[in-house]
Amino acid sequence: MSTDRLIYLPLGGAGEIGMNAYVYGYGRPGKERLIVVDLGIAFPDMETSPGVDVIMPDIAWLVERRDRIEAVFITHAHEDHVGAIAHTYDQLKAPIYARAFTSNIARRKMEEHGHPEEAITTVSAWPEVVQAGPFAVGFLPVSHSIPESSSLIIDTPEGRVIHSGDFKLDETPLVGEPFDPEVWAEVSKDGVKALICDSTNVFSPSPGRSEASLGPEITKLVEKAKGMVVATTFASNVARVKTLAEAGERAGRSIVLMGRAMKRMIEAAVETGVLTDFPRIVPPEDAKSIPRENLMLLVTGSQGERRAASAQLSRGKYQGMEMKEGDLFLFSSKTIPGNEKGVIRIMNAFSEQGVDVVDDSNGLYHVSGHANGPDLERLTAIVKPQVLIPMHGEHRHLREHVKIANRNGMTGVLAVNGMMVDLSGNQPTIAEYIDTGRTYLDGSVQISAMDGVVRDRIRMALNGHVVVTVILDDEDEPLGEPWCELKGVPETGTSKAALVDVLEADLAQWLARAGAKTLRDDDKLHEGIKRTVRNTSLDEIGRKPEVTIVVSRLS
Amino acid sequence: MSTDRLIYLPLGGAGEIGMNAYVYGYGRPGKERLIVVDLGIAFPDMETSPGVDVIMPDIAWLVERRDRIEAVFITHAHEDHVGAIAHTYDQLKAPIYARAFTSNIARRKMEEHGHPEEAITTVSAWPEVVQAGPFAVGFLPVSHSIPESSSLIIDTPEGRVIHSGDFKLDETPLVGEPFDPEVWAEVSKDGVKALICDSTNVFSPSPGRSEASLGPEITKLVEKAKGMVVATTFASNVARVKTLAEAGERAGRSIVLMGRAMKRMIEAAVETGVLTDFPRIVPPEDAKSIPRENLMLLVTGSQGERRAASAQLSRGKYQGMEMKEGDLFLFSSKTIPGNEKGVIRIMNAFSEQGVDVVDDSNGLYHVSGHANGPDLERLTAIVKPQVLIPMHGEHRHLREHVKIANRNGMTGVLAVNGMMVDLSGNQPTIAEYIDTGRTYLDGSVQISAMDGVVRDRIRMALNGHVVVTVILDDEDEPLGEPWCELKGVPETGTSKAALVDVLEADLAQWLARAGAKTLRDDDKLHEGIKRTVRNTSLDEIGRKPEVTIVVSRLS
Repeated sequence: MSTDRLIYLPLGGAGEIGMNAYVYGYGRPGKERLIVVDLGIAFPDMETSPGVDVIMPDIAWLVERRDRIEAVFITHAHEDHVGAIAHTYDQLKAPIYARAFTSNIARRKMEEHGHPEEAITTVSAWPEVVQAGPFAVGFLPVSHSIPESSSLIIDTPEGRVIHSGDFKLDETPLVGEPFDPEVWAEVSKDGVKALICDSTNVFSPSPGRSEASLGPEITKLVEKAKGMVVATTFASNVARVKTLAEAGERAGRSIVLMGRAMKRMIEAAVETGVLTDFPRIVPPEDAKSIPRENLMLLVTGSQGERRAASAQLSRGKYQGMEMKEGDLFLFSSKTIPGNEKGVIRIMNAFSEQGVDVVDDSNGLYHVSGHANGPDLERLTAIVKPQVLIPMHGEHRHLREHVKIANRNGMTGVLAVNGMMVDLSGNQPTIAEYIDTGRTYLDGSVQISAMDGVVRDRIRMALNGHVVVTVILDDEDEPLGEPWCELKGVPETGTSKAALVDVLEADLAQWLARAGAKTLRDDDKLHEGIKRTVRNTSLDEIGRKPEVTIVVSRLS
Repeated sequence: MSTDRLIYLPLGGAGEIGMNAYVYGYGRPGKERLIVVDLGIAFPDMETSPGVDVIMPDIAWLVERRDRIEAVFITHAHEDHVGAIAHTYDQLKAPIYARAFTSNIARRKMEEHGHPEEAITTVSAWPEVVQAGPFAVGFLPVSHSIPESSSLIIDTPEGRVIHSGDFKLDETPLVGEPFDPEVWAEVSKDGVKALICDSTNVFSPSPGRSEASLGPEITKLVEKAKGMVVATTFASNVARVKTLAEAGERAGRSIVLMGRAMKRMIEAAVETGVLTDFPRIVPPEDAKSIPRENLMLLVTGSQGERRAASAQLSRGKYQGMEMKEGDLFLFSSKTIPGNEKGVIRIMNAFSEQGVDVVDDSNGLYHVSGHANGPDLERLTAIVKPQVLIPMHGEHRHLREHVKIANRNGMTGVLAVNGMMVDLSGNQPTIAEYIDTGRTYLDGSVQISAMDGVVRDRIRMALNGHVVVTVILDDEDEPLGEPWCELKGVPETGTSKAALVDVLEADLAQWLARAGAKTLRDDDKLHEGIKRTVRNTSLDEIGRKPEVTIVVSRLS
């Protein structure tokens, strides 16, 4: 009797949207051979992670088991799936497998970080499979908002598992393979142990629309535009970029690509043969000599990113181009929650320039890349898995998706980051809880979200920072007056005197009254100074700043 | 020939949604007698205003002309219209006029700040008018998402001006006066010089729905709920609170109000006779003895505010109550842009508790308080103003609203904060540009948004803060080693040594090499230390922190 087991362990992406990282294992408990599916990042914000560059899943669990990792499989080239491969390569050193387009993007990342490109192996689509220890893994093409997105067919000694990756059911996706229900029926016909499934759009009640539905509407919009037309979408949405470019071409406009990601993605799509017959592109430097009513710019920055082309155009010139009254700007995109203010800032800046802004509010110029509620049910009905495990979603999405599974007579498992699910046997069980978390790439350093570094930044941002310097002579007597430096704190308070003067006076008084015992004791000295600063500040400015105290003893 | 003129000057609310403050004046240029319409606040965020408590319009222009202010009129009791009255009272000392419900709320604010309640005069609805210098001002009831919202009929020697305030065209608003097209036709029949008009929902393409449409849907939802039902909305939306409470009552549930604002608003509505026959309320302490399937809690915090009742319930107990699996939580509200993450955080916390969350995504449980595009056209067609000046909107809203005016054969004026419009004569002209801006209430201190205090906080949040202390003896020679304190900066960098040690070593080296001339010159010394810290940090951690330098000279 074998004690081998099949495990599933999300380290990121289950209970949040972003930084996907899923582990599958097979073998004796604690000795499983492992594969990793996706190693993505999430993006920081001022509220929770100011100053941070990139957020990654904490992969400590994997690093400790590095010798057991057979391979890393990347389902597609979105940052939340591939973004962490270069940042984690030194720690994992595992071979990485992906399809051509994803590999192309992944290699650029590896190269930027000085990692060997050979770490990445390009794999053809299903039925090709990669043998990785006890697993045989194939890339089954699915439609999504980026070329060559794939579900993974993971064959294990316990049966077949399908990891959906990000997908939608688009039978006319324009670029890349359409959804093919027959292929899905074929791969599922011998029974599927578990479907680990995208949950992003589980709350969307209507079936998703096809990418092909957008072309005619966008063409109409561009044709009736009088000035220059500028459109933004995710650069990686190559099908959309093509739709936009073709609409421009049909309207007799020259197409200009702006923003680094836009050029990189189109380049990758052409290099890998994903993209053929894209309209002719005019470089920005030549665009200036073309009448603006004959131009269509396709630019980065659909999420309001401050340094992308959209934001730069909203503030003035970008690569010699400038918006003018009567121009049209199209957001062919959905604003991700949290990015609203940045997008609205750009819309208003364009409005000030007299530019008409069109967004997706009427539903004509964007479709989602994720399967909606009814689409999830449709796929599940084809696959008929024994177990459905929702992933790629916040807790509320996963929970709703489990409800759908149960409603359809399947076992649904709500597994969030850190919950190791044992898929062996007839009923899945929770085998273990693993500590998970977030790692911040902060400048060039990786720190844990729990380190307190970012917490200190948030505190300084909320409260300001007062630095107190006190010098004590060799008899532990104050030498001169205490000295305060203020940063992020109002200059004057209720007494109308400079706050720095009031603080220094109060500290001088406190020091004068403090006994020799206090002055000799660093802890007591710090505590007294801190209390004085915070009390005086509260009186003067109604708040308690962060306090840093430097005591220099000349003794 | 008179040189008197009629002016309109927005100081807040035109080019943004929030902190409304509009000035009207009549008289000789520079000698106009003034009235102020609304004195509201806006809310801070981590990205632009960390640590700030409240954002107000900069009223310096008004303060300089305080002796010319006849009165302040408050259209309704939302914070973005009334929130700044107590904070600005000391500077303006002008009499304040409002209808009963608004006065009730306003007096509470004045009282909290120790200002005289008598500063506020309660006025009845139109046709009562207040004579304020050259102006006669009446409060014409309009429907909105708070009781007794009013348009102002402002009669001037140059003719009638109507300031719409916030409004919608609701003929069945449940609480307060319905929209009455006949009254509007009546007040407009002798000609309206200018309509200054709410633009919030100018992009919404369908006519607005009535508050009355919600009751049946909410009742259905509550009736089929099995556990406890909790609903949140803006507390000031008294009609909605009543709709929710009545739905609960019909479903045989006891109603509990939770959150300070909820109690304050209902109290004000009852005190002023706005609200009659509200379902019986059970205090939270009695609710614990009622079976949860017989309870309906109405709570504050529809925007995800961390300290409001909704957020507290999502984290655990609040006033002895706790959510359980099978309970229902209803957001009878729309999430204001920028608040998405906070609301989603609560939704996910409830999901973890097994609570079903229902929001407005299907459009059944919330209606807006602002007139939609077609409603704006309808009102304008009744009023037929010579001039339409959009207000209460971001730039894009104002611009769209001007387009509607032009399409309907009216003169539309796009006037943003600081643009003084001369409404005298046949064509409006821009008379002057006034410096405007934002004042932050920061703890107990008012600071200008331009002061740099908040900028310093943001920089510390993004970059961290390094404090360097250097002591120079009476010969200007370094006494001991330089000392660094780090806050919000990673502890170790690429060299794997503690960053503080690397910095101190590099600074010691730099000081050892620095000549006497540098050591004697504060500027050079600061510059060298700062450069050393920033360069070393860049090498070690890939970023340049903020640097504060304390040089203590014993000489």
